[in-house]
Amino acid sequence: MATGAIRRGPRPGGTDTRTEILAAAAAVFSKDGYQRGSVRGIAREAGVDPALVRHYFASKSELFVEAMRPPFDLTEQVARISEGDPQLVGHRVMAFFVEVWDDPVRGPRIIQLLRAALDHPEVAEFVRTRIIEGVIERVAAAVGAKDPARAAATAASQVIGLAMLRHAAHIEPLASEPGDELIARFGPIVTRLLTGADGDSAPAQST
Amino acid sequence: MATGAIRRGPRPGGTDTRTEILAAAAAVFSKDGYQRGSVRGIAREAGVDPALVRHYFASKSELFVEAMRPPFDLTEQVARISEGDPQLVGHRVMAFFVEVWDDPVRGPRIIQLLRAALDHPEVAEFVRTRIIEGVIERVAAAVGAKDPARAAATAASQVIGLAMLRHAAHIEPLASEPGDELIARFGPIVTRLLTGADGDSAPAQST
Repeated sequence: MATGAIRRGPRPGGTDTRTEILAAAAAVFSKDGYQRGSVRGIAREAGVDPALVRHYFASKSELFVEAMRPPFDLTEQVARISEGDPQLVGHRVMAFFVEVWDDPVRGPRIIQLLRAALDHPEVAEFVRTRIIEGVIERVAAAVGAKDPARAAATAASQVIGLAMLRHAAHIEPLASEPGDELIARFGPIVTRLLTGADGDSAPAQST
Repeated sequence: MATGAIRRGPRPGGTDTRTEILAAAAAVFSKDGYQRGSVRGIAREAGVDPALVRHYFASKSELFVEAMRPPFDLTEQVARISEGDPQLVGHRVMAFFVEVWDDPVRGPRIIQLLRAALDHPEVAEFVRTRIIEGVIERVAAAVGAKDPARAAATAASQVIGLAMLRHAAHIEPLASEPGDELIARFGPIVTRLLTGADGDSAPAQST
Protein backbone atom coordinates (compact mmCIF):
# COMPACT_ATOMS: atom_id res chain seq x y z
CA MET A 1 0.00 0.00 0.00
CA ALA A 2 2.53 2.59 1.18
CA THR A 3 4.16 3.88 -1.97
CA GLY A 4 7.48 5.23 -0.82
CA ALA A 5 7.80 7.38 -3.93
CA ILE A 6 4.70 9.38 -3.06
CA ARG A 7 4.85 9.47 0.71
CA ARG A 8 8.60 9.81 1.10
CA GLY A 9 9.35 13.36 2.23
CA PRO A 10 12.61 15.24 2.58
CA ARG A 11 14.05 12.68 5.01
CA PRO A 12 17.72 11.83 5.18
CA GLY A 13 18.47 8.79 3.04
CA GLY A 14 15.46 8.33 0.79
CA THR A 15 15.80 5.28 -1.44
CA ASP A 16 18.99 4.28 0.33
CA THR A 17 17.24 4.26 3.69
CA ARG A 18 14.48 2.07 2.30
CA THR A 19 17.09 -0.29 0.83
CA GLU A 20 18.94 -0.39 4.14
CA ILE A 21 15.73 -1.19 6.02
CA LEU A 22 15.00 -4.01 3.55
CA ALA A 23 18.52 -5.41 4.01
CA ALA A 24 18.15 -5.25 7.79
CA ALA A 25 14.72 -6.88 7.58
CA ALA A 26 16.07 -9.68 5.37
CA ALA A 27 18.85 -10.34 7.89
CA VAL A 28 16.54 -10.29 10.93
CA PHE A 29 13.74 -12.34 9.33
CA SER A 30 16.21 -14.88 7.88
CA LYS A 31 17.57 -15.46 11.38
CA ASP A 32 14.46 -15.13 13.56
CA GLY A 33 11.58 -15.88 11.17
CA TYR A 34 8.41 -13.89 10.61
CA GLN A 35 6.87 -14.38 14.04
CA ARG A 36 9.85 -13.51 16.20
CA GLY A 37 11.40 -10.88 13.91
CA SER A 38 10.23 -7.45 15.15
CA VAL A 39 9.99 -4.05 13.51
CA ARG A 40 11.84 -2.68 16.54
CA GLY A 41 14.71 -5.14 16.05
CA ILE A 42 14.86 -4.38 12.32
CA ALA A 43 15.00 -0.63 13.03
CA ARG A 44 17.85 -1.25 15.48
CA GLU A 45 19.69 -3.37 12.88
CA ALA A 46 19.23 -0.65 10.26
CA GLY A 47 20.18 2.13 12.69
CA VAL A 48 16.93 4.03 12.17
CA ASP A 49 13.88 4.92 14.23
CA PRO A 50 11.04 2.32 14.19
CA ALA A 51 8.71 5.10 12.99
CA LEU A 52 10.80 5.38 9.83
CA VAL A 53 10.33 1.66 9.16
CA ARG A 54 6.57 2.16 9.50
CA HIS A 55 6.80 5.15 7.18
CA TYR A 56 8.12 2.97 4.36
CA PHE A 57 6.16 -0.21 5.11
CA ALA A 58 2.51 -0.13 6.15
CA SER A 59 2.64 -3.49 7.92
CA LYS A 60 5.04 -6.14 9.15
CA SER A 61 3.74 -8.55 6.51
CA GLU A 62 4.41 -6.02 3.73
CA LEU A 63 7.94 -5.54 5.04
CA PHE A 64 8.45 -9.31 5.31
CA VAL A 65 7.25 -10.12 1.81
CA GLU A 66 9.26 -7.26 0.32
CA ALA A 67 12.44 -8.21 2.17
CA MET A 68 12.16 -11.95 1.44
CA ARG A 69 11.26 -11.56 -2.25
CA PRO A 70 13.35 -14.04 -4.24
CA PRO A 71 16.06 -11.97 -5.95
CA PHE A 72 15.68 -13.29 -9.47
CA ASP A 73 13.96 -12.33 -12.68
CA LEU A 74 10.93 -14.60 -13.07
CA THR A 75 10.69 -14.58 -16.86
CA GLU A 76 14.37 -15.31 -17.26
CA GLN A 77 14.31 -18.22 -14.79
CA VAL A 78 11.18 -19.72 -16.35
CA ALA A 79 12.75 -19.54 -19.81
CA ARG A 80 16.00 -21.10 -18.58
CA ILE A 81 14.24 -23.98 -16.76
CA SER A 82 11.76 -24.62 -19.60
CA GLU A 83 14.39 -24.88 -22.35
CA GLY A 84 16.01 -28.19 -23.24
CA ASP A 85 14.97 -31.83 -22.95
CA PRO A 86 11.47 -31.94 -21.35
CA GLN A 87 12.43 -35.22 -19.65
CA LEU A 88 15.11 -33.32 -17.70
CA VAL A 89 12.86 -30.43 -16.67
CA GLY A 90 12.62 -31.76 -13.09
CA HIS A 91 16.37 -31.93 -13.02
CA ARG A 92 16.60 -28.24 -13.92
CA VAL A 93 13.90 -27.30 -11.38
CA MET A 94 15.76 -29.19 -8.65
CA ALA A 95 19.11 -27.65 -9.65
CA PHE A 96 17.51 -24.21 -9.38
CA PHE A 97 16.04 -24.83 -5.92
CA VAL A 98 19.00 -26.72 -4.47
CA GLU A 99 21.28 -23.85 -5.46
CA VAL A 100 19.00 -21.42 -3.59
CA TRP A 101 18.62 -23.67 -0.51
CA ASP A 102 22.34 -24.26 -0.19
CA ASP A 103 23.21 -20.58 -0.55
CA PRO A 104 24.21 -19.10 2.83
CA VAL A 105 22.17 -15.92 2.23
CA ARG A 106 19.28 -16.97 -0.03
CA GLY A 107 18.80 -20.35 1.67
CA PRO A 108 17.65 -19.15 5.11
CA ARG A 109 15.58 -16.48 3.38
CA ILE A 110 13.47 -18.88 1.29
CA ILE A 111 13.13 -21.37 4.16
CA GLN A 112 11.73 -18.66 6.45
CA LEU A 113 9.47 -17.52 3.62
CA LEU A 114 8.08 -21.05 3.18
CA ARG A 115 7.72 -21.52 6.94
CA ALA A 116 5.81 -18.24 7.26
CA ALA A 117 3.52 -19.28 4.38
CA LEU A 118 2.23 -22.12 6.59
CA ASP A 119 1.03 -19.67 9.25
CA HIS A 120 0.18 -16.43 7.47
CA PRO A 121 -2.31 -16.28 4.58
CA GLU A 122 -0.75 -13.15 3.09
CA VAL A 123 2.65 -14.90 2.89
CA ALA A 124 1.01 -18.05 1.47
CA GLU A 125 -0.56 -15.85 -1.19
CA PHE A 126 2.85 -14.45 -2.07
CA VAL A 127 4.41 -17.94 -2.34
CA ARG A 128 1.45 -19.09 -4.43
CA THR A 129 1.54 -16.23 -6.92
CA ARG A 130 5.29 -15.68 -6.99
CA ILE A 131 6.81 -19.18 -6.78
CA ILE A 132 4.08 -21.72 -7.58
CA GLU A 133 2.22 -19.81 -10.32
CA GLY A 134 5.05 -17.45 -11.25
CA VAL A 135 7.66 -20.14 -11.81
CA ILE A 136 6.47 -23.74 -11.45
CA GLU A 137 3.12 -23.44 -13.25
CA ARG A 138 4.68 -21.60 -16.19
CA VAL A 139 7.32 -24.32 -16.47
CA ALA A 140 4.59 -27.01 -16.30
CA ALA A 141 2.71 -25.27 -19.11
CA ALA A 142 5.90 -25.00 -21.18
CA VAL A 143 6.55 -28.77 -20.93
CA GLY A 144 2.98 -29.62 -21.90
CA ALA A 145 1.15 -30.46 -18.67
CA LYS A 146 -2.57 -30.90 -19.40
CA ASP A 147 -3.52 -29.15 -16.14
CA PRO A 148 -0.58 -26.85 -15.37
CA ALA A 149 -2.13 -25.42 -12.17
CA ARG A 150 -2.64 -28.87 -10.65
CA ALA A 151 0.72 -30.19 -11.87
CA ALA A 152 2.46 -27.13 -10.40
CA ALA A 153 0.76 -27.46 -7.00
CA THR A 154 1.63 -31.16 -6.93
CA ALA A 155 5.27 -30.58 -7.85
CA ALA A 156 5.38 -27.71 -5.34
CA SER A 157 4.15 -30.04 -2.58
CA GLN A 158 7.10 -32.36 -3.32
CA VAL A 159 9.73 -29.63 -3.61
CA ILE A 160 8.49 -27.56 -0.66
CA GLY A 161 8.06 -30.70 1.48
CA LEU A 162 11.66 -31.62 0.72
CA ALA A 163 12.82 -28.10 1.61
CA MET A 164 10.93 -28.26 4.91
CA LEU A 165 12.24 -31.71 5.93
CA ARG A 166 15.81 -31.01 4.79
CA HIS A 167 16.24 -27.42 5.98
CA ALA A 168 13.67 -26.82 8.72
CA ALA A 169 13.09 -30.18 10.48
CA HIS A 170 16.57 -31.47 9.46
CA ILE A 171 15.33 -35.00 8.84
CA GLU A 172 18.00 -37.55 7.90
CA PRO A 173 19.08 -38.90 5.48
CA LEU A 174 17.75 -35.90 3.53
CA ALA A 175 19.47 -33.25 5.66
CA SER A 176 22.98 -34.44 4.86
CA GLU A 177 22.34 -35.67 1.30
CA PRO A 178 24.61 -33.69 -1.03
CA GLY A 179 22.91 -31.28 -3.42
CA ASP A 180 24.01 -33.07 -6.60
CA GLU A 181 22.63 -36.39 -5.35
CA LEU A 182 19.33 -34.72 -4.43
CA ILE A 183 19.12 -33.22 -7.93
CA ALA A 184 19.82 -36.58 -9.58
CA ARG A 185 17.37 -38.40 -7.32
CA PHE A 186 14.48 -35.91 -7.28
CA GLY A 187 14.92 -34.75 -10.89
CA PRO A 188 12.95 -37.65 -12.44
CA ILE A 189 10.35 -37.44 -9.67
CA VAL A 190 9.71 -33.75 -10.35
CA THR A 191 9.71 -34.30 -14.13
CA ARG A 192 6.85 -36.78 -13.77
CA LEU A 193 4.91 -34.44 -11.47
CA LEU A 194 5.43 -31.43 -13.74
CA THR A 195 4.59 -33.08 -17.02
CA GLY A 196 1.39 -34.28 -15.37
CA ALA A 197 2.05 -37.92 -16.22
CA ASP A 198 0.87 -38.95 -12.76
CA GLY A 199 -2.30 -36.91 -12.78
CA ASP A 200 -3.24 -38.24 -16.21
CA SER A 201 -2.70 -41.86 -15.25
CA ALA A 202 -4.34 -41.68 -11.82
CA PRO A 203 -7.83 -42.77 -12.86
CA ALA A 204 -6.35 -46.05 -14.14
CA GLN A 205 -5.49 -46.99 -10.53
CA SER A 206 -8.08 -49.29 -9.01
CA THR A 207 -9.64 -47.57 -6.00
CA MET B 1 11.46 -37.54 32.16
CA ALA B 2 8.74 -36.95 34.74
CA THR B 3 7.15 -40.30 35.42
CA GLY B 4 3.74 -39.50 36.81
CA ALA B 5 3.51 -42.88 38.51
CA ILE B 6 6.49 -42.14 40.71
CA ARG B 7 6.11 -38.43 41.33
CA ARG B 8 2.36 -38.28 41.57
CA GLY B 9 1.44 -37.74 45.24
CA PRO B 10 -1.89 -37.88 47.04
CA ARG B 11 -3.39 -35.18 44.83
CA PRO B 12 -7.02 -35.04 43.84
CA GLY B 13 -7.57 -36.68 40.47
CA GLY B 14 -4.45 -38.76 39.79
CA THR B 15 -4.57 -40.47 36.39
CA ASP B 16 -7.83 -38.72 35.52
CA THR B 17 -6.26 -35.32 36.13
CA ARG B 18 -3.33 -36.20 33.89
CA THR B 19 -5.74 -37.38 31.19
CA GLU B 20 -7.77 -34.20 31.51
CA ILE B 21 -4.64 -32.06 31.21
CA LEU B 22 -3.66 -33.99 28.06
CA ALA B 23 -7.12 -33.48 26.57
CA ALA B 24 -6.97 -29.75 27.36
CA ALA B 25 -3.44 -29.54 25.91
CA ALA B 26 -4.54 -31.32 22.71
CA ALA B 27 -7.44 -28.86 22.33
CA VAL B 28 -5.31 -25.77 22.98
CA PHE B 29 -2.33 -26.86 20.86
CA SER B 30 -4.59 -28.00 17.99
CA LYS B 31 -6.11 -24.53 17.91
CA ASP B 32 -3.16 -22.29 18.75
CA GLY B 33 -0.11 -24.37 17.80
CA TYR B 34 2.98 -25.09 19.84
CA GLN B 35 4.36 -21.56 20.01
CA ARG B 36 1.21 -19.72 21.05
CA GLY B 37 -0.31 -22.49 23.18
CA SER B 38 0.61 -21.76 26.81
CA VAL B 39 0.79 -23.93 29.92
CA ARG B 40 -1.30 -21.28 31.66
CA GLY B 41 -4.01 -21.49 28.99
CA ILE B 42 -3.98 -25.28 29.13
CA ALA B 43 -4.33 -25.22 32.92
CA ARG B 44 -7.28 -22.85 32.58
CA GLU B 45 -8.88 -25.13 29.94
CA ALA B 46 -8.39 -28.15 32.24
CA GLY B 47 -9.61 -26.26 35.31
CA VAL B 48 -6.40 -26.92 37.28
CA ASP B 49 -3.53 -24.89 38.67
CA PRO B 50 -0.59 -24.36 36.24
CA ALA B 51 1.67 -25.89 38.92
CA LEU B 52 -0.25 -29.15 38.58
CA VAL B 53 0.43 -29.18 34.81
CA ARG B 54 4.14 -28.74 35.57
CA HIS B 55 3.92 -31.54 38.14
CA TYR B 56 2.86 -34.02 35.46
CA PHE B 57 4.90 -32.66 32.54
CA ALA B 58 8.47 -31.49 32.99
CA SER B 59 8.40 -29.18 29.97
CA LYS B 60 6.06 -27.67 27.42
CA SER B 61 7.62 -29.81 24.69
CA GLU B 62 6.97 -33.00 26.70
CA LEU B 63 3.35 -31.96 27.19
CA PHE B 64 3.02 -31.08 23.49
CA VAL B 65 4.45 -34.34 22.20
CA GLU B 66 2.41 -36.39 24.67
CA ALA B 67 -0.83 -34.54 23.85
CA MET B 68 -0.32 -34.64 20.07
CA ARG B 69 0.76 -38.29 19.91
CA PRO B 70 -1.12 -39.95 17.03
CA PRO B 71 -3.81 -42.10 18.65
CA PHE B 72 -3.18 -45.34 16.78
CA ASP B 73 -1.33 -48.58 17.31
CA LEU B 74 1.82 -48.46 15.16
CA THR B 75 2.27 -52.17 14.60
CA GLU B 76 -1.34 -52.63 13.61
CA GLN B 77 -1.27 -49.72 11.14
CA VAL B 78 2.01 -50.84 9.59
CA ALA B 79 0.64 -54.36 9.11
CA ARG B 80 -2.60 -53.05 7.62
CA ILE B 81 -0.81 -50.72 5.16
CA SER B 82 1.85 -53.27 4.20
CA GLU B 83 -0.59 -56.05 3.35
CA GLY B 84 -2.04 -56.47 -0.15
CA ASP B 85 -0.83 -55.53 -3.63
CA PRO B 86 2.57 -53.76 -3.28
CA GLN B 87 1.68 -51.61 -6.29
CA LEU B 88 -1.18 -50.12 -4.26
CA VAL B 89 0.86 -49.46 -1.11
CA GLY B 90 0.97 -45.71 -1.80
CA HIS B 91 -2.78 -45.79 -2.19
CA ARG B 92 -3.13 -47.30 1.30
CA VAL B 93 -0.63 -44.83 2.77
CA MET B 94 -2.54 -41.92 1.26
CA ALA B 95 -5.90 -43.31 2.43
CA PHE B 96 -4.48 -43.54 5.95
CA PHE B 97 -3.17 -39.97 5.98
CA VAL B 98 -6.11 -38.35 4.17
CA GLU B 99 -8.47 -39.91 6.72
CA VAL B 100 -6.42 -38.36 9.54
CA TRP B 101 -6.10 -34.93 7.85
CA ASP B 102 -9.81 -34.71 7.10
CA ASP B 103 -10.83 -35.73 10.63
CA PRO B 104 -12.09 -32.68 12.58
CA VAL B 105 -10.18 -33.69 15.73
CA ARG B 106 -7.12 -35.60 14.51
CA GLY B 107 -6.56 -33.35 11.46
CA PRO B 108 -5.67 -30.11 13.25
CA ARG B 109 -3.64 -32.16 15.72
CA ILE B 110 -1.29 -33.71 13.14
CA ILE B 111 -1.00 -30.46 11.18
CA GLN B 112 0.12 -28.59 14.30
CA LEU B 113 2.50 -31.46 15.08
CA LEU B 114 4.07 -31.23 11.61
CA ARG B 115 4.24 -27.43 11.78
CA ALA B 116 5.97 -27.57 15.16
CA ALA B 117 8.48 -30.12 13.81
CA LEU B 118 9.77 -27.41 11.45
CA ASP B 119 10.70 -25.14 14.36
CA HIS B 120 11.49 -27.40 17.30
CA PRO B 121 14.11 -30.16 17.12
CA GLU B 122 12.49 -32.22 19.88
CA VAL B 123 9.21 -32.29 17.93
CA ALA B 124 11.08 -33.08 14.70
CA GLU B 125 12.69 -36.01 16.51
CA PHE B 126 9.25 -37.25 17.56
CA VAL B 127 7.90 -37.00 14.00
CA ARG B 128 11.02 -38.75 12.70
CA THR B 129 10.92 -41.69 15.12
CA ARG B 130 7.17 -42.01 15.43
CA ILE B 131 5.80 -41.29 11.94
CA ILE B 132 8.69 -41.55 9.45
CA GLU B 133 10.61 -44.45 10.99
CA GLY B 134 7.72 -45.88 13.00
CA VAL B 135 5.28 -46.13 10.13
CA ILE B 136 6.62 -45.13 6.70
CA GLU B 137 10.05 -46.78 6.89
CA ARG B 138 8.57 -50.06 8.14
CA VAL B 139 6.09 -50.03 5.27
CA ALA B 140 8.93 -49.28 2.80
CA ALA B 141 10.88 -52.24 4.16
CA ALA B 142 7.79 -54.47 3.92
CA VAL B 143 7.32 -53.65 0.21
CA GLY B 144 10.96 -54.29 -0.60
CA ALA B 145 12.65 -50.87 -0.78
CA LYS B 146 16.42 -51.34 -1.14
CA ASP B 147 17.11 -48.39 1.17
CA PRO B 148 14.01 -48.14 3.38
CA ALA B 149 15.31 -45.14 5.40
CA ARG B 150 15.90 -43.06 2.29
CA ALA B 151 12.69 -44.20 0.59
CA ALA B 152 10.73 -43.34 3.75
CA ALA B 153 12.24 -39.87 4.07
CA THR B 154 11.56 -39.22 0.39
CA ALA B 155 7.95 -40.40 0.61
CA ALA B 156 7.56 -38.40 3.83
CA SER B 157 8.75 -35.24 2.06
CA GLN B 158 5.97 -35.72 -0.51
CA VAL B 159 3.22 -36.59 1.98
CA ILE B 160 4.18 -33.96 4.56
CA GLY B 161 4.64 -31.33 1.85
CA LEU B 162 1.15 -32.09 0.61
CA ALA B 163 -0.23 -31.85 4.15
CA MET B 164 1.47 -28.48 4.64
CA LEU B 165 0.28 -26.97 1.33
CA ARG B 166 -3.25 -28.37 1.63
CA HIS B 167 -3.92 -27.81 5.33
CA ALA B 168 -1.54 -25.08 6.50
CA ALA B 169 -0.89 -22.79 3.52
CA HIS B 170 -4.26 -23.74 1.90
CA ILE B 171 -2.81 -23.70 -1.62
CA GLU B 172 -5.32 -24.32 -4.42
CA PRO B 173 -6.18 -26.54 -6.21
CA LEU B 174 -4.88 -28.91 -3.50
CA ALA B 175 -6.84 -27.32 -0.64
CA SER B 176 -10.25 -28.10 -2.13
CA GLU B 177 -9.36 -31.36 -3.90
CA PRO B 178 -11.59 -34.11 -2.46
CA GLY B 179 -9.86 -36.77 -0.37
CA ASP B 180 -10.70 -39.65 -2.69
CA GLU B 181 -9.23 -37.81 -5.68
CA LEU B 182 -6.07 -37.04 -3.71
CA ILE B 183 -5.74 -40.71 -2.79
CA ALA B 184 -6.19 -41.81 -6.41
CA ARG B 185 -3.77 -39.17 -7.69
CA PHE B 186 -1.01 -39.40 -5.07
CA GLY B 187 -1.31 -43.17 -4.53
CA PRO B 188 0.87 -44.12 -7.55
CA ILE B 189 3.31 -41.29 -6.74
CA VAL B 190 3.81 -42.55 -3.18
CA THR B 191 4.05 -46.18 -4.33
CA ARG B 192 7.00 -45.29 -6.54
CA LEU B 193 8.69 -43.31 -3.78
CA LEU B 194 8.15 -46.07 -1.20
CA THR B 195 9.26 -48.99 -3.32
CA GLY B 196 12.41 -47.00 -4.04
CA ALA B 197 11.94 -47.28 -7.81
CA ASP B 198 12.99 -43.64 -8.23
CA GLY B 199 16.07 -43.87 -6.06
CA ASP B 200 17.27 -46.97 -7.86
CA SER B 201 16.85 -45.45 -11.30
CA ALA B 202 18.30 -42.04 -10.47
CA PRO B 203 21.89 -42.74 -11.52
CA ALA B 204 20.65 -43.51 -15.05
CA GLN B 205 19.65 -39.83 -15.41
CA SER B 206 22.25 -37.82 -17.25
CA THR B 207 23.47 -35.01 -15.01
